[in-house]
Amino acid sequence: MTQTELMTQVMALNARYAASLDRGDLEDWPRCFTEDGMYRVTSADNRRAGHQASLIYARGQGMLKDRVQALREANIYERQSYRHVIGMPLAAAAAEEASIETPFVVVRTMRTGRIDVFATGVYLDTVTISEDGAALRDRMVVCDSSRIDTLLAIPL
Amino acid sequence: MTQTELMTQVMALNARYAASLDRGDLEDWPRCFTEDGMYRVTSADNRRAGHQASLIYARGQGMLKDRVQALREANIYERQSYRHVIGMPLAAAAAEEASIETPFVVVRTMRTGRIDVFATGVYLDTVTISEDGAALRDRMVVCDSSRIDTLLAIPL
Amino acid sequence: MTQTELMTQVMALNARYAASLDRGDLEDWPRCFTEDGMYRVTSADNRRAGHQASLIYARGQGMLKDRVQALREANIYERQSYRHVIGMPLAAAAAEEASIETPFVVVRTMRTGRIDVFATGVYLDTVTISEDGAALRDRMVVCDSSRIDTLLAIPL
Repeated sequence: MTQTELMTQVMALNARYAASLDRGDLEDWPRCFTEDGMYRVTSADNRRAGHQASLIYARGQGMLKDRVQALREANIYERQSYRHVIGMPLAAAAAEEASIETPFVVVRTMRTGRIDVFATGVYLDTVTISEDGAALRDRMVVCDSSRIDTLLAIPL
Repeated sequence: MTQTELMTQVMALNARYAASLDRGDLEDWPRCFTEDGMYRVTSADNRRAGHQASLIYARGQGMLKDRVQALREANIYERQSYRHVIGMPLAAAAAEEASIETPFVVVRTMRTGRIDVFATGVYLDTVTISEDGAALRDRMVVCDSSRIDTLLAIPL
Repeated sequence: MTQTELMTQVMALNARYAASLDRGDLEDWPRCFTEDGMYRVTSADNRRAGHQASLIYARGQGMLKDRVQALREANIYERQSYRHVIGMPLAAAAAEEASIETPFVVVRTMRTGRIDVFATGVYLDTVTISEDGAALRDRMVVCDSSRIDTLLAIPL
């Protein structure tokens, strides 16, 4: 697999990831992960301090689907809308499994019309490439802000 | 045409689209569309409610150029500047004609120095690929905000 | 080199550029430039007015490293964090040396948790492609805002 093909696969994966969240097809979101895929959220400060524990942690399709189910029941996505803009992937290694770092910005639009930047940060991913395309074996979301309690409600 | 080539073509088209608007080369903007290309704007709420009517509608090079001409006469671009950041395209199908969904964010800078997020949403495109590259046969701009009256002045 | 390969190379360069600044690996930032590479900052207004002088100007690895050293000593990156989102490159020409125009947005997160759009604009680049990948021979940062005094502290 060439560098170009790898980047295309990862960009396609991120496009799918963003679309599933932003158009509210939440059930598509776990499908961006492998069967035992891991989703974690932490802050840049925590990470610099060497804290291993994540603020959010979900492993495997079961837990990922549970999160989505909880969001559905809480009607989170009816109150405001989110828009992910995901940047260029930076590949640290290119093999069957690649380490990728990708910046993101999430913009939120309230019912009142107010628009603000909700979150920024970087995805630290382990991505598996198969015939079906790329999938996340591990996505660690590192938020730039340390005040991320309100960021934890929705998948970033 | 491979998936990689399709994505490259669409990204190049979107780069041209953004640059034509943001550097004020408005006359280049209609050239991103096919001869009978359609430009439409609606809101996510309208779309969810099943409303077919668009808030803005222009079909064909004549109408597209008329819009640009009107903006020139109103000196819209002299008052503030806009910057599009267009995300990764998500291709629903890949043939001579492809259905593409692409997130966007438009940031506005006022003369006072104030910067804010002006609009976010998604482009729902039908893109034609020819020897000259990709062109828009239909771009439906779906804004995340429902308060889009102020968004209608400039092409999104 | 095909258009697809050129775009991939430029996107990879920009991913590296953004990551070096945003994760604070400032020493990696000069490595995005050629040996005699030039980094300049100006405003869109200055450019339209035909002013040749840049507000910031650094030429060659020595001056670029000096800038980074100064930032380290001033502890700039400890006070807030920045996140670049760099858009799709628009290639004006494709040869050994390519002219590329790429939009960018920089979002800033303060210690207080406040997030705002710090700067937007466009990179006007001359990019050299070699076996080691793409490198900047000249990056002219054109800011949309004319009030860019505060923008000059960190590399954009």
